[in-house]
Amino acid sequence: MLDTGLDTAPEPVELLVCVKCRGLRETPEDDRRPGVALYQAVLDGELPEGVTVTPVECLQNCDHGCTVAFRGGPGRWTYVYGRLDETADADLLREGAALYRDAVDGLIPWRARPDHFKKNCVARIPPLDAPLPRLEN
Amino acid sequence: MLDTGLDTAPEPVELLVCVKCRGLRETPEDDRRPGVALYQAVLDGELPEGVTVTPVECLQNCDHGCTVAFRGGPGRWTYVYGRLDETADADLLREGAALYRDAVDGLIPWRARPDHFKKNCVARIPPLDAPLPRLEN
Repeated sequence: MLDTGLDTAPEPVELLVCVKCRGLRETPEDDRRPGVALYQAVLDGELPEGVTVTPVECLQNCDHGCTVAFRGGPGRWTYVYGRLDETADADLLREGAALYRDAVDGLIPWRARPDHFKKNCVARIPPLDAPLPRLEN
Repeated sequence: MLDTGLDTAPEPVELLVCVKCRGLRETPEDDRRPGVALYQAVLDGELPEGVTVTPVECLQNCDHGCTVAFRGGPGRWTYVYGRLDETADADLLREGAALYRDAVDGLIPWRARPDHFKKNCVARIPPLDAPLPRLEN
């Protein structure tokens, strides 16, 4: 983890994986869902410290699955990312989870942000204590 | 509010309005942003009891704005909706906020759910204590 200069470790973060996603390819009705495959592929590798993975009942981004979300306590932005590949993107998600964990407000610095995250952010939700934006115009 | 049979009122809910949204129409650079117009249009009407409205610095659904989110305590699903009209949809959002407030888990019953919400849900985030889904297949 980054040395934040704080005595306390960053709050743990959660990677939510939609296990209902059918993904971007045609999948036979009775095959394993791509969302389940992605969830299991993420668990098959070594998870970064402070990261948990939770299967979720539909994140409702069905046209652009597989879809995941990152959240981590009341002080972080929650991020939703789509168009993930159930086999190729497990490493990306574990690495992304570590970057998210190290960002105390959940904002991964742009230059460090994985390219897929830059291009496939579906939505984000502010932390409970987010400062109010200025209402320009 | 619905009679829930509980002595306590439902947890208050929050309608988050992205004030950076440019909306679906061409808007001149120096005009008021559609997101700001939507935020102010919602505030111009009478808010349902237990509903607060918060302006937000970009919900990152920029291609399908105007965009809002509903959240309400640790027990409710958070919902993100896009493609809102900054003038026509203020009533919809106030009514939707009341429906969301009355749904203790944040799931507005399908038959009561406004048509726009059915068709323009961008994503949803589970409550912290959501039951884990069964991993079929």
